[in-house]
Amino acid sequence: MSKEVKPESVSLRPLGGGAAVMATSEQEPVCIFGTGDLGRSLGQRLLQTDYKVVYGSRRPRSCGPLPEGAQAFSHADAAQLASLIFVCVHREHYDFMETLTSQLEGKVLVDVSNNPEKNLYPEANAAYLQRLLPGCQVVKGFNTLSAWTLQNGPSDASRQVYLCGNSAEAKQAVAEVATKMGLTVLDRGSLSAARELEDIPLQLFPEWKLPLQITVGLLAFFFFYLLIREVVYAYVDQGKDISFRIMVSLANKVFPIVSLIMLSLCYLPGVIAAFLQMYRGTKYRRFPDWLDRWMLCRKQLGLLALALAFLHVLYTLIIPIRYYVRYRILDFTVTQIRENQTSEFDNTMAWRTDSYYSVGILGFGLYILLGITSLPSVSNALSWREFSFIQSKLGHVTLLLCTLHTYLYGWDRFLHPSMYKWYTPAGYMLSLLVPTVVLTLKLLLLLPCVDRSITRIRRGWERTDLDEEKTLLA
Amino acid sequence: MSKEVKPESVSLRPLGGGAAVMATSEQEPVCIFGTGDLGRSLGQRLLQTDYKVVYGSRRPRSCGPLPEGAQAFSHADAAQLASLIFVCVHREHYDFMETLTSQLEGKVLVDVSNNPEKNLYPEANAAYLQRLLPGCQVVKGFNTLSAWTLQNGPSDASRQVYLCGNSAEAKQAVAEVATKMGLTVLDRGSLSAARELEDIPLQLFPEWKLPLQITVGLLAFFFFYLLIREVVYAYVDQGKDISFRIMVSLANKVFPIVSLIMLSLCYLPGVIAAFLQMYRGTKYRRFPDWLDRWMLCRKQLGLLALALAFLHVLYTLIIPIRYYVRYRILDFTVTQIRENQTSEFDNTMAWRTDSYYSVGILGFGLYILLGITSLPSVSNALSWREFSFIQSKLGHVTLLLCTLHTYLYGWDRFLHPSMYKWYTPAGYMLSLLVPTVVLTLKLLLLLPCVDRSITRIRRGWERTDLDEEKTLLA
Amino acid sequence: MSKEVKPESVSLRPLGGGAAVMATSEQEPVCIFGTGDLGRSLGQRLLQTDYKVVYGSRRPRSCGPLPEGAQAFSHADAAQLASLIFVCVHREHYDFMETLTSQLEGKVLVDVSNNPEKNLYPEANAAYLQRLLPGCQVVKGFNTLSAWTLQNGPSDASRQVYLCGNSAEAKQAVAEVATKMGLTVLDRGSLSAARELEDIPLQLFPEWKLPLQITVGLLAFFFFYLLIREVVYAYVDQGKDISFRIMVSLANKVFPIVSLIMLSLCYLPGVIAAFLQMYRGTKYRRFPDWLDRWMLCRKQLGLLALALAFLHVLYTLIIPIRYYVRYRILDFTVTQIRENQTSEFDNTMAWRTDSYYSVGILGFGLYILLGITSLPSVSNALSWREFSFIQSKLGHVTLLLCTLHTYLYGWDRFLHPSMYKWYTPAGYMLSLLVPTVVLTLKLLLLLPCVDRSITRIRRGWERTDLDEEKTLLA
Repeated sequence: MSKEVKPESVSLRPLGGGAAVMATSEQEPVCIFGTGDLGRSLGQRLLQTDYKVVYGSRRPRSCGPLPEGAQAFSHADAAQLASLIFVCVHREHYDFMETLTSQLEGKVLVDVSNNPEKNLYPEANAAYLQRLLPGCQVVKGFNTLSAWTLQNGPSDASRQVYLCGNSAEAKQAVAEVATKMGLTVLDRGSLSAARELEDIPLQLFPEWKLPLQITVGLLAFFFFYLLIREVVYAYVDQGKDISFRIMVSLANKVFPIVSLIMLSLCYLPGVIAAFLQMYRGTKYRRFPDWLDRWMLCRKQLGLLALALAFLHVLYTLIIPIRYYVRYRILDFTVTQIRENQTSEFDNTMAWRTDSYYSVGILGFGLYILLGITSLPSVSNALSWREFSFIQSKLGHVTLLLCTLHTYLYGWDRFLHPSMYKWYTPAGYMLSLLVPTVVLTLKLLLLLPCVDRSITRIRRGWERTDLDEEKTLLA
Repeated sequence: MSKEVKPESVSLRPLGGGAAVMATSEQEPVCIFGTGDLGRSLGQRLLQTDYKVVYGSRRPRSCGPLPEGAQAFSHADAAQLASLIFVCVHREHYDFMETLTSQLEGKVLVDVSNNPEKNLYPEANAAYLQRLLPGCQVVKGFNTLSAWTLQNGPSDASRQVYLCGNSAEAKQAVAEVATKMGLTVLDRGSLSAARELEDIPLQLFPEWKLPLQITVGLLAFFFFYLLIREVVYAYVDQGKDISFRIMVSLANKVFPIVSLIMLSLCYLPGVIAAFLQMYRGTKYRRFPDWLDRWMLCRKQLGLLALALAFLHVLYTLIIPIRYYVRYRILDFTVTQIRENQTSEFDNTMAWRTDSYYSVGILGFGLYILLGITSLPSVSNALSWREFSFIQSKLGHVTLLLCTLHTYLYGWDRFLHPSMYKWYTPAGYMLSLLVPTVVLTLKLLLLLPCVDRSITRIRRGWERTDLDEEKTLLA
Repeated sequence: MSKEVKPESVSLRPLGGGAAVMATSEQEPVCIFGTGDLGRSLGQRLLQTDYKVVYGSRRPRSCGPLPEGAQAFSHADAAQLASLIFVCVHREHYDFMETLTSQLEGKVLVDVSNNPEKNLYPEANAAYLQRLLPGCQVVKGFNTLSAWTLQNGPSDASRQVYLCGNSAEAKQAVAEVATKMGLTVLDRGSLSAARELEDIPLQLFPEWKLPLQITVGLLAFFFFYLLIREVVYAYVDQGKDISFRIMVSLANKVFPIVSLIMLSLCYLPGVIAAFLQMYRGTKYRRFPDWLDRWMLCRKQLGLLALALAFLHVLYTLIIPIRYYVRYRILDFTVTQIRENQTSEFDNTMAWRTDSYYSVGILGFGLYILLGITSLPSVSNALSWREFSFIQSKLGHVTLLLCTLHTYLYGWDRFLHPSMYKWYTPAGYMLSLLVPTVVLTLKLLLLLPCVDRSITRIRRGWERTDLDEEKTLLA
């Protein structure tokens, strides 16, 4: 980040004394309101970072064990010692601060509070605090850190501190404290962002919710579909109990089927968007909401598809050590010998199955590459052109290889009536529907004439604009 | 990053009014020249970040749909409203700004332009703009972001904004805007870096080009070499069509061979460099260019080698489920029984093959570790000593294990004349050449006397220096 | 990071001339004391970043080849040309600077030195320098970079520069230089942190030491335990030499056993901590040191356990291509046919083995997920709640699946006396001890009444507090 030296800062420092932001100079203590868990952790960490710490407490003499080196005073006394005050108090008790209006005048208050659930109050805690004390400079922040992080310093999980507030100086004073504690500060603008910050610790993978629902839905559907088609059918039709196949054989059908469908669902919205832009003749009209939301969860869809593909690979590779498979091979060998049969080597079969495996492996290799470039640190190191080359070009190649892998699996079995048990198509046939549509549409988009038109639109050309322009010039 | 509070900033703020950098205060609007795609996306994002936005347009009344909340004026009027102006106009149209010299005097101009290809113009767009308008402070930046990122805020792909410009204040003003938009700013120095920034979006993995060419070259060579030695030979010599082996058997020879060669190519330049330093008796003379370039692409070579090793593992693990392999085993079993043969268990064979697998697995495990520590976020967390321990020490152990794995594969087949079909050595023999050379040379470097000498040179000792010094002191 | 524009910086710049921090303006050169390796590399890089560079040298006329564009002077002359001086001199030679007290007065000195080993001197090099020259502003920094990085610009390995010093302005001046060189600056506070910074380049995975010792210890124990129980037993009892099994069969028992134990060791301290908190009735008393240290190395324990699990997967998957296994299967088939035996398909066996594999694969899949979320860039992107959901909830599920996998492996063999060779239990039985204890204790903690009590304590409630409070109120 750019950092310019302020030449005047040296000469002017003596003149600036007494300003609110002097709060963080190492002579003046930092004040913490509240001796609860958060207040103690924060105080301990501040003391480790060479700050002096004073606590403001209702019962300064009996507030329990404080970190070594810190002192406890009444709220009013503590407030007067410092110009930077961390408010580690639950929102319900904020009102006591109204009685301290004069002592808190001009101070920087850091609201670190969180709520147990979303939308509990009409306004953000920090906004409420600012309203209570208009003479203070309220900064929201530190609330996304755990008490553990506050006490022990930044761990892997959370090094980032979000700040927001209406006063730039107040934010800078707080940012300096955070930086000294080894944290990385992200400014989120004015206090209107406080609600957003207060919601962060309550979130649990919000952007994964929809993709996970889709995954679970598809997994459940195909599990029961294949359960009926294979296990129940075998039991009803031939009276055989092959329920043990649920654990591996069925799983190894459900996972790749859902993986392929989800991979194609990653690329379907892009294709739809292109056709929509062509139809509209412009790219400046917003996409419908469902398409927008779909496009925003492509990464999650893709990663879940990759996880299922990974499981498919493992389930496939353990095939030869399964008891069932070994039994079948032994049985087959014994039968061949006892009945004196010979089987001819089938060159086409060898080509087909080897191609099937080879295409699958290459597809999985590219799949992994897509996954690796989704890691934040890797994708940050890529230029936009590089990122889109991998995620779009290589992504479509991956989809092509995986679809081909499935077609090679099916081969000519599409034509065998015996495959359509109870008149239903096999699972892999269903899984081929979406990818085939996506690849066909993508192929259409790659036709030179269509490609030219879509490129023009994406560069900003508008069909309607042009017409208007003609009218204007006429 | 260090961030110091400027105590005077509070008291002095009222005095500083009217300066150019006030541009980004939230009262004054930000101006955008150009209502094209980029201009609209940028404006929309600025509005979302609570900036006021005014557009400068040739036809302010008919410039198409603007983001809600933005206003369009003539270029001259818009320029006067703001002191920070984003120029979202193609370079060919920059000349109109010459007529606005007086209105633009002292303003900060952000050049966000990109060119469709490299070296189209003799000077960078931003440098050209600065030359046109010497009274302005031109900052190059934002050009590495996609319109999508500009409109929707930072995504995974690109959070970083590169800035360069001759005025530190101008850069800081722009940096503030970028930071408020949630972007990370990297200062790239003066405007002379503008060409470099303009080339970034046109790059497509420049540092991967040479390693990829080497990979493809080696893959092609060994593919045809083995195709002739195995498939063509079998057809010519025995009239057998084993072309199906191309898909898996051949691939599973080509991939590990090229992977091993490339892994050893990662470590060869380091060994050459050490011998060169010993020969020269100093480390202060630059390496020849080819060696420098080679050393700079070691990471890419290694990652490509890892990708091929990964494919080799998958190709190996599917062996037992291949139709061809199952057929061969069945055939062998049937033959054994029909001809009443018995095969004795061969303890040496068991030791050799199990060692072969075990060494390969451990080598692959270390290989993966090398790959993981190449991830930007992981290698950033390592100290230099730790990084070089893993990449150099463990890297050489990996090479040793993988080479041993290949020797165990060969075993005593080096001595069988039947292996030299058409008088050519097998592929794996060729693959052993480079790694054997690298490991032998490395072993030489580890000899105590050689190691002492090279360590002394690397600490800055110079053979010639010493002689000179002696002369001086004499 | 928050970055506020200082409106006054433009108007005030002319007034601030002559201050120490003007050092880094591009007109004034940067001075480097010492023309050794580090000094040259640093100078070359500074020249590339458009700084002017002057060297201070004992023998300015014969100091060897300097980077092109740099000039060498006596120390005194060089010091007067610049206000920012990099001291690239070994600590033993610092004393010469005492003679330059007047020339160095008010200058910023950057101490970039490192020591060959820890605790060589009673005080940090930078602290020593500051004591020698109280009139200077000493900043410690750049010492964690390799000469290679300094010369060639930031590579993957190290982009971060740690700075510490007592003067904020001095640090900011140095930070600007570092930022211009493309490095990321992390402020580590006052000069008292210098020793810590000087120790960084000497560290070699300090936090991995204990976990690695545990891993090696467990691996060695189980290797010899199983060696005796299997290989030696077979030799003594039946006179059979099955030593070849060491390479794969034995490894594939040792690795999963140690992996499972270590995974459970990740979760044991958390369970112990919870019971300790319940017993004490408060969370404000520090845990015993051993527990604290244990909790801090859970991540490393888990990653090593994952590496072993990964090896276990590979060793398992190559089973069917092993010579020994193929021989056994062939032998079994031949025996079956020759002796005209038939084996019945065992449905329970199919269920059990397939479940065994399936549970193992799912456990490994979750294991990989835990590993991926341990990558710094991924865990940084998670909120605290998300991180703990994955590492704690999913982590315990992983442990449950892996433990179940091992129980399914054992099945009813726990009851067979023949399994207890030489009265010792099999390896997998030993491996089940710790995970069973951890899961049982965890289950206890999940009981509603226990859970309520522990949650209350973790929210800050204290049993003793309450009693005291009662007394006070009484």
